[in-house]
Amino acid sequence: MEEIRPNQVDFKVALAEKAGLVNSALAELLERRLDIGDELKTAIKYTLQAPGKRIRSALVLWCCELTRGALNRDAEAAAAAVEMVHTYSLVHDDLPAMDDDDLRRGQASCHKKFDEATAILTGDALLTLAFEVLAVEITKPEIAVRLIRTLASACGPAGMIEGQMVDLRSQNRRGTVDILRHIHINKTAKMFAAAAAMGTIVGGGNDEQIERLLQYGLKIGLGFQVADDILDVSGSSEQLGKTSGKDARQGKVTYPVVVGMAESKRIAEKLCEEAVGAVDIFDEEADILRKLAVVLSQRTR
Amino acid sequence: MEEIRPNQVDFKVALAEKAGLVNSALAELLERRLDIGDELKTAIKYTLQAPGKRIRSALVLWCCELTRGALNRDAEAAAAAVEMVHTYSLVHDDLPAMDDDDLRRGQASCHKKFDEATAILTGDALLTLAFEVLAVEITKPEIAVRLIRTLASACGPAGMIEGQMVDLRSQNRRGTVDILRHIHINKTAKMFAAAAAMGTIVGGGNDEQIERLLQYGLKIGLGFQVADDILDVSGSSEQLGKTSGKDARQGKVTYPVVVGMAESKRIAEKLCEEAVGAVDIFDEEADILRKLAVVLSQRTR
Repeated sequence: MEEIRPNQVDFKVALAEKAGLVNSALAELLERRLDIGDELKTAIKYTLQAPGKRIRSALVLWCCELTRGALNRDAEAAAAAVEMVHTYSLVHDDLPAMDDDDLRRGQASCHKKFDEATAILTGDALLTLAFEVLAVEITKPEIAVRLIRTLASACGPAGMIEGQMVDLRSQNRRGTVDILRHIHINKTAKMFAAAAAMGTIVGGGNDEQIERLLQYGLKIGLGFQVADDILDVSGSSEQLGKTSGKDARQGKVTYPVVVGMAESKRIAEKLCEEAVGAVDIFDEEADILRKLAVVLSQRTR
Repeated sequence: MEEIRPNQVDFKVALAEKAGLVNSALAELLERRLDIGDELKTAIKYTLQAPGKRIRSALVLWCCELTRGALNRDAEAAAAAVEMVHTYSLVHDDLPAMDDDDLRRGQASCHKKFDEATAILTGDALLTLAFEVLAVEITKPEIAVRLIRTLASACGPAGMIEGQMVDLRSQNRRGTVDILRHIHINKTAKMFAAAAAMGTIVGGGNDEQIERLLQYGLKIGLGFQVADDILDVSGSSEQLGKTSGKDARQGKVTYPVVVGMAESKRIAEKLCEEAVGAVDIFDEEADILRKLAVVLSQRTR
């Protein structure tokens, strides 16, 4: 897949463009929906407007464009909701009782900048806001309800929360590939899949398109996580925007620990190929998704 | 209002009946929606099936009956969602970084029974499940979306979360009645108002009915909180099902501290009268709501 490498500059530009859209949608939504006290507002803005890569929310927008041909305000609201849920999960995961991380998106994590209570409440606020945004901003109730179902089932107790629970419990235990897969599918891949499905639903995609992009999201989500495990070993904190080598120090089950570095890289590559395969019903308009699959599984930061 | 006292036995029976319905709806929903790992499931069941009084969820059911004449499965789902959100708020509020309470609903609070990480995730799970239940179980998308809006706006950063934030910050500071009102309206009253509005929406109530019952909910919610402040001073832990005298020890702003006990009781009584006034467009079918207003503002447990 080396031939796609020269396009990474284009990919970064395309991602930056979508990140700009997401950031402006988030800023506008916060302005309209956060008529509240300064303290909570400051903490919510601090975490939500930190320089995240906006990959999940960009995925919403790309899948909408793929099926609809253009973006609309519904797509922006769906992307903002996905980013809010992702950010809430980072804020809660960073808490001392959870992964205990001081650095996030290149800045002090929420509980370090403020305090633990503020971080708990900021996470709660972002999760609630995500559903409120979908219920208020999406034009058609049928679409809003489908988006809320998709998001809630991905980030709820049968998804992201289960993944985090098992991940926490896996510390200092001997992991297996099955446990790793269970953690990563739930903790990471289901949110990528939901983001892809939500964009496709907003774009008016048919059932086959939704199913294909859902599968694509699962594969790149898993690939992203395998690459994350690899980076935790080989990357610097500066590259990661969060503390590196932390998984290993916390005795977490990771792909390099369980299957070794070479096999981890092979798995990431295979997931990338499967992701590309899932979108083979689309022509070149899905090239950005093909690039995303490659970038995520081969990323160095 | 002494004449309503003899009816308190009837009221308790009526509340117990609704609590039974809510409990069975919760059990059924958990069975269907929680196909997940044992650890998280155990913690979710432990907190959700603790012997809560189910006042907010009963209010959903009563307001549905008041406007629709009967209950349906939508009303049960709405009541379950309200109870899930209320329970999530208790789980997070009890955390050491927040109100640090070891006892809740007569049993060890979630982080004492399990650990802090489990309590954070259990709260997150209940909040997410509430929105999922509304998006999945409510028959008509238009109704589902209205319920989600109502619930999210009451429990989000412009509601319950703001209330908890200001409440935490009020510790060991000199309070005023204005700050107290701000805390209690946001932290407690808006959820009562949302519960009443959600029941009325499910029951097909018109705009005036929704507005009246919303006002009723705000008033009884505030009255409930004033009575809670009074009970924290005068009640035992056994009566409360949570640690008594805690607000005072934590230096929290409470009505008895700010305005004195006699004035606190007068305020509770006035709120009760205003709540009863808000439902004067209804005949005797709203008697249960009148009783609820009296019971909440005069309760000794």
